[in-house]
Formats: sequence, structure tokens, C-alpha cells
Amino acid sequence: MSFKLDHRLEQDGILLAESEQYVLNLVNDSRYIWLVLIPKATNAKDMFDLTEEQQIDLALKSNKIGRIITEQFKGDKFNIASLGNMVPQLHVHLIVRTVGDAAWPGPIWGVGDAVPYDSPQREKVIDKLRAVVNLIS
Amino acid sequence: MSFKLDHRLEQDGILLAESEQYVLNLVNDSRYIWLVLIPKATNAKDMFDLTEEQQIDLALKSNKIGRIITEQFKGDKFNIASLGNMVPQLHVHLIVRTVGDAAWPGPIWGVGDAVPYDSPQREKVIDKLRAVVNLIS
Repeated sequence: MSFKLDHRLEQDGILLAESEQYVLNLVNDSRYIWLVLIPKATNAKDMFDLTEEQQIDLALKSNKIGRIITEQFKGDKFNIASLGNMVPQLHVHLIVRTVGDAAWPGPIWGVGDAVPYDSPQREKVIDKLRAVVNLIS
Repeated sequence: MSFKLDHRLEQDGILLAESEQYVLNLVNDSRYIWLVLIPKATNAKDMFDLTEEQQIDLALKSNKIGRIITEQFKGDKFNIASLGNMVPQLHVHLIVRTVGDAAWPGPIWGVGDAVPYDSPQREKVIDKLRAVVNLIS
């Protein structure tokens, strides 16, 4: 069975990179640097549905991305989470948190409404995410 | 420098297991099966502060625990997250989610007040967590 990205992930995200193993999206909410990494593992709903090899690769990739984006955007804390109560397709949130951001110090989900990027903002952020894109591509 | 558990993690948790590498707590909130795994890595604030070896072990252990508790407590979804915006000491939330639980389908943080276990409930849950305790001890 071939991999098909959940339509809600597709709708909320700006595609940053795609490889044989992953899709990497930028969430279209300019209040945070918020990435979503989706392993192309058909039928994986929970982390433990992945093979150990896939679990290891996902953890190391997520943390590498976390380090890059936290440094690049001068974040105070890196948040990483796989919840998936609404979108069952396994996906990992990678979020740069900054003291005083729209949800600080709480989690970001369900707080206010997304503020979509305007075009120049989006280009600027995507440009700063080049190292992350290279990691996945 | 020796490892010292953050006082808020200590205060909110019931110690389940401790090894050379980890402390595993059960959060004292009977609304969810909610565990917190803390790597004894002094000075680690973010996942990427751990060595790759530690990152791999933490990911595999977290997911193994996730599989056991989700099966044992007949959960619908496993939530895993490292946020740490309030408690900077690196810790991983491992939560069994059930359709219709107190926060479903949203994340559990900041929803209502914790409902502490009474003593028989606590004993029963801890008894069911024996396989997880053995994994860490």
C-alpha cells in the first residue's frame, strides 16, 4: 500500500521536504516555528508501531531538527510531541518555544487561532530552514 | 555533579522505578494513565542535549513503555511528549489516551484539576504497571 499524507496534515502544512522515509511540513502558523515530521510508515498510528530501526531514525532526525531550529530561531526550549488524537496518522510535532510566545509556558495546541504566514515571511522562514530541508531530502 | 530530581516532578509523581539511567514516575492524577520518564542526565534540558546513545535508549524505552501501558490499560492512543516549558529538567510524558477521557481529543496539560489516586486505586494501577517497572529497574 502506498503512503498517502492525511488531508488535515496536508491542509495545515507547507511542504518543506520529502524523502523516501519522511514528509516534513512547516505548520502555517507564524506565531511559532512549528514543524511536523511524518514517517511514511503506512498504518503506523503509535510510535511503537514502527520498527526499532525506524524508531531510532525518527528520534535522531527529530532531535537533530530540534537542535537546528532552536539554534537558528534562537528559541528558549524545544518541544517534541506525538499526540495524534485528532489526526491518527503518526506525526511528530517539533516546535521552537520562546519565552512570551502566544502560548508560553503552556503547550501550543488549541491556543487561539493560527496566524498564517504572509508570502515574504514564509520565504524568509523557509530560507532559514534550509539546513533542516537538507537533512530530510 | 549528581542527579537531583526536580522538586515539581517529585511532588506531582509517585515513584515507580529508578535505575542508573532513569527515574520513572506515575503522575498522581487518576484521570489518565500518565507516566513521566526522566533520564538522569544532569544538565540536559532538551532532547538534543543527550548523547545519540542516550537519545536512542530513551526513544526505545519510551516506546516500549508506551506499548505496554496502552495494551495493559486498553488505551486508544499513546501520547508522548517532551515539553518542559515549566519544569526545565528533561522529562518525557508517556500517556495512555482513551476516547472520552477528561481532555479527549485535546492534549491533557492544563485541563481541569488532577484527581489524585486513592490508596486502593493506586495499588491496583501500580500492580498493573509491574512490567513497566521491570523494564526500568
